[in-house]
Amino acid sequence: MSSLFLSSADLESIFAQAGPDSLLDELIMRLRAAFRRLDSGAAQIPPRSGLSYRSPGLGLLEWMPASLGEGSATLKVVGYHPSNPALRGLPTVISSIGQFDTSTGHLKGMLDGTLLTAMRTGAMSAIASGALARPDSDTLGIVGCGAQAVTQAHALSRLFPLSRIIAFDTDPAAMGSLRRRLGFLDIPVETVDRAQLPELLERSDILCTCTSAEPGAGPLFPDFRNRSHLHINAVGSDFHDKIELPVELLRRAFVCPDFRDQAMREGECQQLAPSEIGPELADVLKSESRFASRQNELTVFDSTGHALADYIATEMILDHANRMGIGSAIELECLPRDPKNPYSFGAGSTFERLQAGRNASLGAT
Amino acid sequence: MSSLFLSSADLESIFAQAGPDSLLDELIMRLRAAFRRLDSGAAQIPPRSGLSYRSPGLGLLEWMPASLGEGSATLKVVGYHPSNPALRGLPTVISSIGQFDTSTGHLKGMLDGTLLTAMRTGAMSAIASGALARPDSDTLGIVGCGAQAVTQAHALSRLFPLSRIIAFDTDPAAMGSLRRRLGFLDIPVETVDRAQLPELLERSDILCTCTSAEPGAGPLFPDFRNRSHLHINAVGSDFHDKIELPVELLRRAFVCPDFRDQAMREGECQQLAPSEIGPELADVLKSESRFASRQNELTVFDSTGHALADYIATEMILDHANRMGIGSAIELECLPRDPKNPYSFGAGSTFERLQAGRNASLGAT
Repeated sequence: MSSLFLSSADLESIFAQAGPDSLLDELIMRLRAAFRRLDSGAAQIPPRSGLSYRSPGLGLLEWMPASLGEGSATLKVVGYHPSNPALRGLPTVISSIGQFDTSTGHLKGMLDGTLLTAMRTGAMSAIASGALARPDSDTLGIVGCGAQAVTQAHALSRLFPLSRIIAFDTDPAAMGSLRRRLGFLDIPVETVDRAQLPELLERSDILCTCTSAEPGAGPLFPDFRNRSHLHINAVGSDFHDKIELPVELLRRAFVCPDFRDQAMREGECQQLAPSEIGPELADVLKSESRFASRQNELTVFDSTGHALADYIATEMILDHANRMGIGSAIELECLPRDPKNPYSFGAGSTFERLQAGRNASLGAT
Repeated sequence: MSSLFLSSADLESIFAQAGPDSLLDELIMRLRAAFRRLDSGAAQIPPRSGLSYRSPGLGLLEWMPASLGEGSATLKVVGYHPSNPALRGLPTVISSIGQFDTSTGHLKGMLDGTLLTAMRTGAMSAIASGALARPDSDTLGIVGCGAQAVTQAHALSRLFPLSRIIAFDTDPAAMGSLRRRLGFLDIPVETVDRAQLPELLERSDILCTCTSAEPGAGPLFPDFRNRSHLHINAVGSDFHDKIELPVELLRRAFVCPDFRDQAMREGECQQLAPSEIGPELADVLKSESRFASRQNELTVFDSTGHALADYIATEMILDHANRMGIGSAIELECLPRDPKNPYSFGAGSTFERLQAGRNASLGAT
């Protein structure tokens, strides 16, 4: 019984064949459908947990499990190592995802979670914005010009008629390269300095905050005079004490977390009392018409990262891989021919060889 | 940056080249050394957790993480699906293990956990018996003739001068095939019926209980007149309410759990008050001379499964794979050339192709 392993080159082939825009559109559609039908009775999506260590460097290794009770489960493993870019030229987040058959425990497939995490995070902001931002939103503000900015802008461009992107970062190099990185969108990218940040905030129809602000250092800016219909995707908060938005703004807003319990521990919702927090995104999507009037109000999507999104992204990519015949099938598990004999696996029998080897060596003495 | 994937055929090659006895001996030595040096300050070995579900069938998918603070972490995923043998000809336990670099989050390697779990469970019983059983123990009793019986007997045969194995199972087929499955050991295997079970128990120097008794159905037998130096490896208990040994026996014994917190939830220690439970195996191994006199007393090793053992077994097999040049190196993770551009991975650039594609299609309209 084999497991399908996708290399990064395989993933590139899948993107090349299907088209990156097409895959992102499909991901947005699949995610919206999945969150709409999310059955909290059948699904099991425990909050993430992990190992944290300070040696050899500060780091986190977390796992995010998800099962919908439909025959599969995914387990994403995410490494978070802030010293990766400077010390090793590697991204801060490196991730892999396994998909398991919940009838048997068999590993069905395994693939990268680094790109997939970035894409599903963008797609989730697009879905939340689709429900809570005005459909004619054309000005996207971005605070934080790192890796997430690319997929946030890409995903939002698939749903909204964006005619300008205004961006800010405390790191001039990150801000300077954003126009090049977003060049494929054919949307003018304007960058502003710290003094013009209030203007960025006040002009935005949709705002994405996706910084790596230090825990305890937030918020990124004081409260401001927002467009009355502003929708914010708060993407950066994912740690205890790491926040991006001023609490005064949150208190004025309709706040929709992706995952309430997690958001109260790691997201903007850390700053709020339970009664100040709105429904989860899944509940908004289940009765979108009931929340349609929120499109004209200040709204915040508190995005901490939802394992259901990893589950759906994994399923989509593996569906394409199977359809295209892409990937390496490897029989990884040592499944014995006799379930009562763990040594009876493989082409020959290790057990028989063991016996033959023992007799031979006994004969030789 | 590639990850090393070992197929079951690769694992078979490693066993064929190194020799199964040699690998098992090395595993016993490595495990003993690792538990002796286990530094509970630096190591992070949280109790296992998982998903349980009743559809499409009763099942569990659990993960067992371990880090020693030495640059690596392992995450074993274990499926437990009791209907596998009857419905699918598959073993109840199917497992895979990933090894991660805790400097970067990179997946270093991945391999089967099915065989490895059986082997390390046997090796752990051998180590516990080495500390707590008499070195001249020659009679091994086995209650439960399934897959675990094979690796229990194999591992114990490496440390003790076994001259007879006496076995019992409620399933005549399992009991009937044990002699064949243990043939490679060249140790006489005697099986007994239910009426002779007391005799099996009373004659054993070392006893292994490794049944799949139903939760709530235990103990397997009433208390009995044991040899004064009897050492028991209680391997089967790994669930709430699943027990194998009578509480009267446990209360007379020196009880050494592999992992105290887990054993109190899932092992024989469920039946005991905290004050009735002895030190963990690691503590016994750290001052073995202090516990030497226990070799002449009734002792029980309460084995629920320790993620450190998976960590060490994985490290050993990957060491051999690297030395032998065995396995498939796959670049699984999409590591971008520009850490701020998640699309800049792979041979060509998905991002550049995306741009080229868009311009081409714009030109075509």
